[in-house]
Amino acid sequence: MHSLSVYIAPLLGIAGLFFAFMIYRVITRQSGGDGQVAAIANQIHHGAMAFMRREIQLIAIFAVVVGVFLLFQDPWVSLAFFLGAIASSIAGLIGMYTATKANVRTTLAAHEKGPNQALTTAFLGGSIMGITVASMGLLGVGGLFVFFGKTEADTHVIHGFAMGASLVAIFFRVGGGIFTKAADVGADLVGKLESGIPEDDPRNPGVIADNVGDNVGDVAGMGSDLFESYCNSMIATMAIAASLSAEVGGESVLQALIHDSGTASSLIFLPLALASTGLICSLGGVAIVNRFASAAPEKALRIGTISAASAFVLASLLVIQLLGISTSVWFCVLTGTGGGVLIGAATEHYTGGKPMRDIAKSSETGVATVMISGLAVGMQSVVLPLLTVSGILIAASHFAGLYGVAVAAVGMLATIGITMSIDAYGPVADNAGGIAEMSGLGSKTREITDKLDEVGNTTAAIGKGFAIGAASLASLAIIAAYVKVVSANNPDFVLLLSDPLVLTGIFLGGLAPFLVSSITMNAVGESAAEMIEEIRRQFREIPGLLDGDADPDSERCIKIATNAALKRMFLPAAIAVLLPVIVGFVLGPVVLGGLLVGALLGCVLLALMMANSGGAWDNAKKYIEKGNFGGKNSDAHHACVVGDTVGDPLKDTSGPSMNILINVMAIVSLVIAPMLST
Amino acid sequence: MHSLSVYIAPLLGIAGLFFAFMIYRVITRQSGGDGQVAAIANQIHHGAMAFMRREIQLIAIFAVVVGVFLLFQDPWVSLAFFLGAIASSIAGLIGMYTATKANVRTTLAAHEKGPNQALTTAFLGGSIMGITVASMGLLGVGGLFVFFGKTEADTHVIHGFAMGASLVAIFFRVGGGIFTKAADVGADLVGKLESGIPEDDPRNPGVIADNVGDNVGDVAGMGSDLFESYCNSMIATMAIAASLSAEVGGESVLQALIHDSGTASSLIFLPLALASTGLICSLGGVAIVNRFASAAPEKALRIGTISAASAFVLASLLVIQLLGISTSVWFCVLTGTGGGVLIGAATEHYTGGKPMRDIAKSSETGVATVMISGLAVGMQSVVLPLLTVSGILIAASHFAGLYGVAVAAVGMLATIGITMSIDAYGPVADNAGGIAEMSGLGSKTREITDKLDEVGNTTAAIGKGFAIGAASLASLAIIAAYVKVVSANNPDFVLLLSDPLVLTGIFLGGLAPFLVSSITMNAVGESAAEMIEEIRRQFREIPGLLDGDADPDSERCIKIATNAALKRMFLPAAIAVLLPVIVGFVLGPVVLGGLLVGALLGCVLLALMMANSGGAWDNAKKYIEKGNFGGKNSDAHHACVVGDTVGDPLKDTSGPSMNILINVMAIVSLVIAPMLST
Repeated sequence: MHSLSVYIAPLLGIAGLFFAFMIYRVITRQSGGDGQVAAIANQIHHGAMAFMRREIQLIAIFAVVVGVFLLFQDPWVSLAFFLGAIASSIAGLIGMYTATKANVRTTLAAHEKGPNQALTTAFLGGSIMGITVASMGLLGVGGLFVFFGKTEADTHVIHGFAMGASLVAIFFRVGGGIFTKAADVGADLVGKLESGIPEDDPRNPGVIADNVGDNVGDVAGMGSDLFESYCNSMIATMAIAASLSAEVGGESVLQALIHDSGTASSLIFLPLALASTGLICSLGGVAIVNRFASAAPEKALRIGTISAASAFVLASLLVIQLLGISTSVWFCVLTGTGGGVLIGAATEHYTGGKPMRDIAKSSETGVATVMISGLAVGMQSVVLPLLTVSGILIAASHFAGLYGVAVAAVGMLATIGITMSIDAYGPVADNAGGIAEMSGLGSKTREITDKLDEVGNTTAAIGKGFAIGAASLASLAIIAAYVKVVSANNPDFVLLLSDPLVLTGIFLGGLAPFLVSSITMNAVGESAAEMIEEIRRQFREIPGLLDGDADPDSERCIKIATNAALKRMFLPAAIAVLLPVIVGFVLGPVVLGGLLVGALLGCVLLALMMANSGGAWDNAKKYIEKGNFGGKNSDAHHACVVGDTVGDPLKDTSGPSMNILINVMAIVSLVIAPMLST
Repeated sequence: MHSLSVYIAPLLGIAGLFFAFMIYRVITRQSGGDGQVAAIANQIHHGAMAFMRREIQLIAIFAVVVGVFLLFQDPWVSLAFFLGAIASSIAGLIGMYTATKANVRTTLAAHEKGPNQALTTAFLGGSIMGITVASMGLLGVGGLFVFFGKTEADTHVIHGFAMGASLVAIFFRVGGGIFTKAADVGADLVGKLESGIPEDDPRNPGVIADNVGDNVGDVAGMGSDLFESYCNSMIATMAIAASLSAEVGGESVLQALIHDSGTASSLIFLPLALASTGLICSLGGVAIVNRFASAAPEKALRIGTISAASAFVLASLLVIQLLGISTSVWFCVLTGTGGGVLIGAATEHYTGGKPMRDIAKSSETGVATVMISGLAVGMQSVVLPLLTVSGILIAASHFAGLYGVAVAAVGMLATIGITMSIDAYGPVADNAGGIAEMSGLGSKTREITDKLDEVGNTTAAIGKGFAIGAASLASLAIIAAYVKVVSANNPDFVLLLSDPLVLTGIFLGGLAPFLVSSITMNAVGESAAEMIEEIRRQFREIPGLLDGDADPDSERCIKIATNAALKRMFLPAAIAVLLPVIVGFVLGPVVLGGLLVGALLGCVLLALMMANSGGAWDNAKKYIEKGNFGGKNSDAHHACVVGDTVGDPLKDTSGPSMNILINVMAIVSLVIAPMLST
């Protein structure tokens, strides 16, 4: 391995950021509109940025406390922690800043130039988030590797970076999730159900807040989520590789994984090399989507993703050969990338295929059967993804042990540049529709944005399944690294499944996702209730509002959502960070090991169930709106609207929090691992 | 230990059965009524017995296949298996036969003699099930122990008995659960919501089937569920005790648990001694309830349970001393019994306390918020029971290792005679109300039965929480026994939590409860849809039915529920039995070990969530019916009726199946354990 090659990753990261900036220039060169369109877009933009600012201020306080604690362990770890937190925050800010510029330009493109230009604008807007996430990850992890990748003990410093990223992610995801669904549920319940005005109607005071929520939840929240999975998978791979040469019998494992030309450092460097390759392939994928978007939008997104993934798989074989690593490791990459595709396909089936249509059909017998069938679909939808993850586990560990499992996680996440771009495209398209409706640009524009939105919904569901699969593999890798680090310091450390302490840990871990989910669901319920009060008050007290003669006080709704989210995001984040610390220091590393596995299982199961129940309800409603089972405003439709409302917090608040919950718990455990003794 | 003492348990079992028969005589000495009352009661009785007959025929086929398979392993295990299956079936038949005699006598007692006599009749009716379950367990396990308890290797034969009991239980629970909720949901959706006629109205063709369902689901199903937990906990304790002297270092563990006068056999015999003590205390408790029922019914039930539990805890100290066993083992009994009380209290809080009232309040903003808050309550309700189980695990294993955990399970289940009596009281009271309504005995009688029913609902919810706690401890003990048996044959067998094979097993195990739940929920949905079709058809085609001028064809509805349940109970049962067999033989005992732990966690979490969400929705509806938040027929009430309907399959079909799913998987694994090799 050439000594200069370590500079490739951070340099590619910088290049990626430059690429993202170029796209930003392309977008902002288009006009942001004027009059009401610009005013509405501005309100959304400023609302989102204001929320982010206040959110980051709160996180900063929490981060300083954690950072000081880490200072006592190792100043470098503390520094890396702050860098991770800053990197994640910047990625979120950049993504959201540009998403709230791209939304209005998408609206205008749809209005003035037609569907093709609109799709291109929305996709490019989202791609900035995707490319930024990948680039910041490479820059951060790669940059730290330049300084701390030399000796194997040093790599522990890099764990701090992952912890910083995770801390920001849990706040962004939970806070953003509460904000967006408080606004959405609140605006829907009063607007659609009580006052009988359509979705995104400008008379509804909660609508702007709802659009702000799409950005803070689905752009910044999702971005920070994938950012931490991305960094975690790389860092876990490094940690496992570093520990191999230290542990008993590790030398022979090591030798089996490398050729004559390879060294132990090659294995540590591999995740960065793979991620770099993935970024290049993603950029190519973005270019392909951009090129073919004019044909069929959905097809273009698909071709772009598949091309990027295929190119990555092929290129990674070359990279692995160049680094002198055994081809068996490449098979691990393959299982990860392939597994990601499989999980995405399973998600698409449950939220868009026959199971979804069965839910729609069950609406003919009322709300109760819609609820029962939706919950059943969510429960059933865990099977295929978990079989896939199990398959990856068996295959990857067969090829290269736990190192192989970690490499599979990197393989799944390497093309995050393109997958995240497509994820972030969804809320941009959604916002574009909202702006079109609110500024009264006519039904033709709205038709175009609706179509874009529909494509976005499918991709968003797939993206969620993918995020869960990636998070579970990444945290598996982190848990493996935790076991290795604790073992290194405590030779008698052993996690026996039949040990009552391990079983206790598994039970405690299993209850954590249920507790956190119930807290976030209640948070949405309470925040939505505050929002409902305010919207009702405005309809009652502002004369002429319902007739369209007066403007609603949208600012106040944004403020309510902001305060509600900031107040209620704290407890789940505190549980995620403190539970492993308390269990680790009070009950010891054995119980903590069990806790992580129990939490992993519980998080993955709940995350899949909630995401897919919610997604299927949402799509069942849309399926009926297309004229099936009585169409819009039929009894069946009303039943499905309830399903959609119930699904909202499940799929956009509680469900997505699960990915981060397990990752935060795992990374916190890894960081405190050197301090634990049996 | 005196050699004659082994006869105590089976003799006590026979005495208990005699006691139950005496109670039966007391009940049947009362008149069963005549005219319409007797006709309705007969329909229910015959419908329930007909379903049981057909169910048992189907189980017999399945049992013969399994029994032949076991024959190849060990003819004695096969024999024990059939005995277990027969014992469980007989217990279910006796309990249900008497429950369907007691229901109408409760109605008549309420009508002719007032609330006190009604409560006594209903409780005595339920107590036959409770006493029979405990007695059959003692007779079966104790009887086998007389023959196979002499050498430690022989105790494996007794595992067959537990497997037979478990096999019957999963069919009874799942089949009964589908029957009862298909009828209930079907009758409610057409009757209450479409035709606007009240609950239990004789014009509704599905009402008799609904009342049949209460018996086959809540009496026979619940009874077989607790019967297998009861037997499993005893058998697991024996297995662990037997393995102690065989394993490396086991001798010293053994010595720590016994005094000079005790022997290894004392430890093996202890669970039978404890269960015998528990049965005697339970009989005392039944007598106490019977004595004080005339004062306050709810109080009488409580005093009876607490007296029995307290007497048991004290008496068990004496038993442990007499057997020459260390007092530390008694602390394990204490944690088990105390834990059961704690879990019951937690369940009562979530389904009857502030969380339930919060759901009722959320009905003011509609169905969607009722659903969200109910799911959140269910998720939150897992925390306290799991903390309790974790506490028991830590404490009991501290006092006496895995043996202590198994003893704690026995401690929790020893007073099953009284807890199961109170459980079975609920459906008897429920049926009594149904008969009163259908035969038009007037509002005063109905008021009395409603009050009895209300008490029954609270006790049923507590009973469910208790059943889950007991099942989880029992299966923990079985899993521990599995590990010991496999280890004995494979010295290199080790279950490391960081082993990818173990993790794979945990994932596979975790998905099983979600898969089975989705299957049973869909089974209820589909069966209810068939029922809805039939009820609609009768209202449409039978002239004068809605005006009360013609009788509905109730037989046909019973037949539909019967066929639907028999058809759909097969798949879940097959999964439960075959999954561990396939995983064990194809992927090996290491993956199977992980599978059991993953399934245990998933089952406990889902069981608690579904039982408590469902129970809380049910009670929230009743809370509103008492005049809160607008009372009956308000919008809030309608919202809660939907919640109740959604909760029905969760709390009475899918949720309760979870207890048995994990127990079946565990006991099947234990039985095949000697055949597995790493």
